[in-house]
Amino acid sequence: MHNNTAISELIAAGKWASQRGWVPATGGNFSARTESGFVVTASGFDKGQLGSHTFIELDHVGNRTRGAGRPSAETELHLSMYKLIPSANFVLHTHSVAATVLSRVIKGHSLNLQGYEMQKSLAGVSSHLDTLSIPIFDNHQDIDHLSLLVSDHHLHTPIEHAVLIRGHGLYVVGRNSKEVMRHLEGLEFLFSCELERLKLEGIQAGVNP
Amino acid sequence: MHNNTAISELIAAGKWASQRGWVPATGGNFSARTESGFVVTASGFDKGQLGSHTFIELDHVGNRTRGAGRPSAETELHLSMYKLIPSANFVLHTHSVAATVLSRVIKGHSLNLQGYEMQKSLAGVSSHLDTLSIPIFDNHQDIDHLSLLVSDHHLHTPIEHAVLIRGHGLYVVGRNSKEVMRHLEGLEFLFSCELERLKLEGIQAGVNP
Amino acid sequence: MHNNTAISELIAAGKWASQRGWVPATGGNFSARTESGFVVTASGFDKGQLGSHTFIELDHVGNRTRGAGRPSAETELHLSMYKLIPSANFVLHTHSVAATVLSRVIKGHSLNLQGYEMQKSLAGVSSHLDTLSIPIFDNHQDIDHLSLLVSDHHLHTPIEHAVLIRGHGLYVVGRNSKEVMRHLEGLEFLFSCELERLKLEGIQAGVNP
Amino acid sequence: MHNNTAISELIAAGKWASQRGWVPATGGNFSARTESGFVVTASGFDKGQLGSHTFIELDHVGNRTRGAGRPSAETELHLSMYKLIPSANFVLHTHSVAATVLSRVIKGHSLNLQGYEMQKSLAGVSSHLDTLSIPIFDNHQDIDHLSLLVSDHHLHTPIEHAVLIRGHGLYVVGRNSKEVMRHLEGLEFLFSCELERLKLEGIQAGVNP
Repeated sequence: MHNNTAISELIAAGKWASQRGWVPATGGNFSARTESGFVVTASGFDKGQLGSHTFIELDHVGNRTRGAGRPSAETELHLSMYKLIPSANFVLHTHSVAATVLSRVIKGHSLNLQGYEMQKSLAGVSSHLDTLSIPIFDNHQDIDHLSLLVSDHHLHTPIEHAVLIRGHGLYVVGRNSKEVMRHLEGLEFLFSCELERLKLEGIQAGVNP
Repeated sequence: MHNNTAISELIAAGKWASQRGWVPATGGNFSARTESGFVVTASGFDKGQLGSHTFIELDHVGNRTRGAGRPSAETELHLSMYKLIPSANFVLHTHSVAATVLSRVIKGHSLNLQGYEMQKSLAGVSSHLDTLSIPIFDNHQDIDHLSLLVSDHHLHTPIEHAVLIRGHGLYVVGRNSKEVMRHLEGLEFLFSCELERLKLEGIQAGVNP
Repeated sequence: MHNNTAISELIAAGKWASQRGWVPATGGNFSARTESGFVVTASGFDKGQLGSHTFIELDHVGNRTRGAGRPSAETELHLSMYKLIPSANFVLHTHSVAATVLSRVIKGHSLNLQGYEMQKSLAGVSSHLDTLSIPIFDNHQDIDHLSLLVSDHHLHTPIEHAVLIRGHGLYVVGRNSKEVMRHLEGLEFLFSCELERLKLEGIQAGVNP
Repeated sequence: MHNNTAISELIAAGKWASQRGWVPATGGNFSARTESGFVVTASGFDKGQLGSHTFIELDHVGNRTRGAGRPSAETELHLSMYKLIPSANFVLHTHSVAATVLSRVIKGHSLNLQGYEMQKSLAGVSSHLDTLSIPIFDNHQDIDHLSLLVSDHHLHTPIEHAVLIRGHGLYVVGRNSKEVMRHLEGLEFLFSCELERLKLEGIQAGVNP
């Protein structure tokens, strides 16, 4: 994929995510793996109004080759996700109310979703009886530290679709822009359901569903 | 009704349902009974952006006559609904947060709605004092099995407007596209009310309203 | 006000209320008092897509003078409101989730709102320290009976802005279309706040605020 | 900044805030500090449909220099905020459900937010470990009295980004229109998260987070 194609698809994804309220207050950052390296959103722009000037282009080892803005502090975590998951070509980092709140009220190290047909919107999931487990990492302002935690975790429990950072938000991957958007929409639906279910059944119902 | 008329009306219904958040992440499937058989959405398309190429046409016994996509796994359940309810000419299968969560937190075999004026948005209901009972079936990945459960249930308790599949979603019928959309909108309103009421009065208030 | 002016303003109010989700599934009905009597929406139309053919025109005593549709069963209650409240020139009857649920979980005969600055969006209210009391009537399919209950109540406790019908919805009045829309928007905001507050403080907090 | 530039930016901010439901029923008021004094919205207009005729222009001491409408009663509080916070050039006063309800259910004198990455959307906040404290003042119809309370509070605990008025709404400041909108969007996100969190963890979880 050319950088320009990736940028076009990320601009469209940003508008779409913004309309759903998942990237408020210039939060979030989006990236893609391309034939010449990576493209990633620069810091501080409204994700609903991205343009070609709001992207930074990186080579295969993560050095900037083009783009004037400040790279997002979280670029390192995007690059780690690409390294860990070879099939991932898009990474979206978003901040929704449901993801933020669930990652706080669930005190353990993963959000375990079970019993929802919509789990099948995630690639490779074929039954509501499976447990879809999204790891939750404690938030940290040192992104290198956070990247290390994610990489370490991946060694014993491979990350498949997404990770949650506690009180912070979601990182979700996909093989292409269509898949990463379907993953994001499916997960946000599941998060909304789980938040409502826990209000009715109590927080404890979220520990071992 | 011609297949093309049915397809046009389902495209409009898909856009409308998508705007309301009831068919996220390419979920759901829509169909109609026509003079030559049935039309049904192919699997994997965003229901908010349907086009004529996203439909499969079937004859009266359910064999494909036109359309290249993969038929939805749930086609069998649509066909069962048409067989059971002779007046049904449209079936919409949707995934809303309220339908998904209510069908899980209500552990029994039906969601019983009572005391809501809006029950009258369902054909044949004339008073808020009536109990509108929507059967809930446990989810199953084997759609033939699920179809059988629905058909068996219908023998002793005829299905009138809709069924819920637990943790999965809603199937709703109507004589025409206008009616099935009114049924869906009325039911989703009632589900939202009931979800809010149970948060205030407790899950037990949903068992025998 | 000419009938045609009133109809134009009600068409705009219908579109506006529909976008906010307050008239789902063809529910609700809208009316205005005019120089030749009244105009009122006919039954069964989507309030977001009203047109001049969806109205019935009545003379000063409520007899139809024009319009082919079926008058809404609730026309009688609109006419009662105009009789009881001489300054009312518009009546909107809507069905929101918050109004429907609050009118059910509050078991008493009124919803009492206190401590909200937004109470001042209702004409004549000048402080958040006032108690804004909206009477709640049990729902009844016999509209004449319901009209009688409202009229009787008005004799000892004059109705100022609105009434709630339990599990059914809201009737709100205004001197002109701008005021009735401000009243509706202000009340719906207050209902949303109160619903959230009761989730946090418990239903009992809604009895004598 | 010229008055006309400020007015253009406030018109855009009003449309944006209205679409998000934060200025219902003609509520709220917006202002800016300009080279010739201040511009402030006149009372009683829908903030989603502001125009140049809906503004009042004031000189440096707050006397009207232009504009025919009635100045909002809350103008005094805007002027106090500009006096207390020299870097503030925009003040938005909004009424959201989350701000209104949180300011009531939290009985203390501040809403303390901690553990949210999104706190960093507020200028000067660099970690989720910081406590972002928004003072809450009891509502009062005497705006001079309210202004005095805010000024007194500022003497011992400087106001940085915003204040809440109990059961009333939010006042938020920024150096420019882009910053004040980011502050408002960030705070509303945090309020929504906190409201959901308290529903799951109980009101007491909001006292000393």
